[in-house]
Amino acid sequence: MNVKENKSKSVDPQTERYERGWEQLKKIDGEAGERVIQSLQEVAPDLGRYVIEFAFGDIYSREGLSLQQRQLVTLSSLTTQGGCEPQLTVHLNAALNVGLSTREIVEAIMHCAPYTGFPRVLNAIQTAKRVFEERNLV
Amino acid sequence: MNVKENKSKSVDPQTERYERGWEQLKKIDGEAGERVIQSLQEVAPDLGRYVIEFAFGDIYSREGLSLQQRQLVTLSSLTTQGGCEPQLTVHLNAALNVGLSTREIVEAIMHCAPYTGFPRVLNAIQTAKRVFEERNLV
Amino acid sequence: MNVKENKSKSVDPQTERYERGWEQLKKIDGEAGERVIQSLQEVAPDLGRYVIEFAFGDIYSREGLSLQQRQLVTLSSLTTQGGCEPQLTVHLNAALNVGLSTREIVEAIMHCAPYTGFPRVLNAIQTAKRVFEERNLV
Amino acid sequence: MNVKENKSKSVDPQTERYERGWEQLKKIDGEAGERVIQSLQEVAPDLGRYVIEFAFGDIYSREGLSLQQRQLVTLSSLTTQGGCEPQLTVHLNAALNVGLSTREIVEAIMHCAPYTGFPRVLNAIQTAKRVFEERNLV
Amino acid sequence: MNVKENKSKSVDPQTERYERGWEQLKKIDGEAGERVIQSLQEVAPDLGRYVIEFAFGDIYSREGLSLQQRQLVTLSSLTTQGGCEPQLTVHLNAALNVGLSTREIVEAIMHCAPYTGFPRVLNAIQTAKRVFEERNLV
Amino acid sequence: MNVKENKSKSVDPQTERYERGWEQLKKIDGEAGERVIQSLQEVAPDLGRYVIEFAFGDIYSREGLSLQQRQLVTLSSLTTQGGCEPQLTVHLNAALNVGLSTREIVEAIMHCAPYTGFPRVLNAIQTAKRVFEERNLV
Repeated sequence: MNVKENKSKSVDPQTERYERGWEQLKKIDGEAGERVIQSLQEVAPDLGRYVIEFAFGDIYSREGLSLQQRQLVTLSSLTTQGGCEPQLTVHLNAALNVGLSTREIVEAIMHCAPYTGFPRVLNAIQTAKRVFEERNLV
Repeated sequence: MNVKENKSKSVDPQTERYERGWEQLKKIDGEAGERVIQSLQEVAPDLGRYVIEFAFGDIYSREGLSLQQRQLVTLSSLTTQGGCEPQLTVHLNAALNVGLSTREIVEAIMHCAPYTGFPRVLNAIQTAKRVFEERNLV
Repeated sequence: MNVKENKSKSVDPQTERYERGWEQLKKIDGEAGERVIQSLQEVAPDLGRYVIEFAFGDIYSREGLSLQQRQLVTLSSLTTQGGCEPQLTVHLNAALNVGLSTREIVEAIMHCAPYTGFPRVLNAIQTAKRVFEERNLV
Repeated sequence: MNVKENKSKSVDPQTERYERGWEQLKKIDGEAGERVIQSLQEVAPDLGRYVIEFAFGDIYSREGLSLQQRQLVTLSSLTTQGGCEPQLTVHLNAALNVGLSTREIVEAIMHCAPYTGFPRVLNAIQTAKRVFEERNLV
Repeated sequence: MNVKENKSKSVDPQTERYERGWEQLKKIDGEAGERVIQSLQEVAPDLGRYVIEFAFGDIYSREGLSLQQRQLVTLSSLTTQGGCEPQLTVHLNAALNVGLSTREIVEAIMHCAPYTGFPRVLNAIQTAKRVFEERNLV
Repeated sequence: MNVKENKSKSVDPQTERYERGWEQLKKIDGEAGERVIQSLQEVAPDLGRYVIEFAFGDIYSREGLSLQQRQLVTLSSLTTQGGCEPQLTVHLNAALNVGLSTREIVEAIMHCAPYTGFPRVLNAIQTAKRVFEERNLV
């Protein structure tokens, strides 16, 4: 497995999609997103490429929902799945980056309580608390 | 188990919360929501009461997110959990009732694909298709 | 795959465990349990054998919890998992067979609401309602 | 978000339900439960209130099942969900507080193995081991 | 939403990836896969396109695992998730199409029992039984 | 609960099955597997016995799939469930022990992305990265 595998993709017809995804990822997730992709370079560089191309180049780049609406959907999906604290941390930051308030984020997580139960909601709120503290928002 | 158990609650201090929840449920879920509560009268009337009081009287009645935002969160949670087709049917109708477009609903479900995978998203889209057809929206 | 594969096991030292499990399954699940095992004969007879030996011969035969306590744990696990309506149907009958009341069964399912959310609890209650109706208990 | 939001609820008609829930939570979960509620004061005080009111004031206060039976159901639900180690720690302590023996707790977790598989059961047993060690029970 | 949305993609640089995916999908899933894509044309044509491009054009087209190995991984993932019977039906047919025997398929599903428990395994086996019967393999 | 409970089983007719399982566990999981069993001696020795007897003595000892095929199925099931990092660590080592390459392991985990979504796949890849680093394979 070769770190350069990722780079070599930049000359094929996928380029535009990759670059659109990369711009979206940097705008939405910021440095935390870049670190996730970087952490994959050694063992699964193509997985990082798929995250960029599919999750950001395809899905996040679609029209029909605002980025704030998309982050509400993402927070709900990650809260409901459980066991996704690293991804929730990235997307809590993303939610703040695209302009959701701490109040809206807390409300979105709490709104999941009747659907997925308190344990997953409590875990997501504790993750949110840590993110808010790191950004001096509480 | 007694159908009247539910009624007898209407004289205690919970009344306001129950009535606020019932108004919200009727506004958001419409007749489909009422049918769910009705179907519980025989074996678990208090469960219907808790759905009204907690899910609608407490959570849906909160400020901080619009009803449209709350439905996006609900659709994402139900899509992600899987196996919740009856509840998804109710809340797809609810999403339309509070003003989300079919496009926004489809986008919200599709947005879950990178987080929860295609199978749960495909199942949710088929459920959406049936709801749209029943309402002559496709 | 051969239906007789199952029978041929009856001469090895596992016999006692298999027979203990089969007695437990018949006592707890009744005919519904036997039908599950029968339905596996054609494609996966050993799976039926493992259900008998491990789930019933090993686990259900243990001391330390009464059969009623074990059914409460089973109902909670199946309610929480979701998508297990066939198994829930068998084990709702089993719960009645070992002496839990309809009230205790409904309470056990409802007790899961704060932990796993309303959708899975509503699905389990509807399954319970069908089982109670079949046995003329509502 | 204001820590006092929680207090201000104590004058509305919900008082009785909140206080009943708070007494139950202290009796069942002890200090560990109080710490969970306390940890929510800064970012989501109402979530703590809902846990008290709905999980403890409504559900745990119901008749129809003993507290020991309710803890068996809770342990099964949390074991089956997976990823709920913090909540499992609180409720393992609660199980001991309401009089379940370490043997009954271990049996209840092990009973989930045929339903939810060994990985979630192994994780729950390791959490139980830590709780038992903290209380000098092994 | 426009059925032609899908076609219009065939002129952009994605063409090769889409066509590679479409060939793979037809080879692996056969008509069942085509029907899934077709069923999405009315409400979510792009979702069908993403299944073709990402699941088949990107992932299934990779080297490093044989198609038989990939189907074992797919069957395990769908069995473990639960609630994915429609997708499992497609991929049980796919497993047969790429040369796995009914015995290997049954073994792969049964192998999940210690990891995900009997209920999801029993549901997957019943789905396999129906597929085998439709193809006159039992 | 008595550590000797486990030993005493070695004289009953289960012996052969237990010993076959123990040999399989040592061959497949190596010392990591033995440590899991050892860690259960104090609170749930029979759980360790069931892992040996059922997971390894019954399931892993079956014919019909090679050990490499079985490990692909196991990795997929554990990746898809989520929250099973300790078990995934043991079975990533097992996958290497039975001859799967790091490339095949990474491909198997990545193959789950369209089925279970990126978050669970990213968590499994990070666990694989740690295992590969410990064995100096990256």
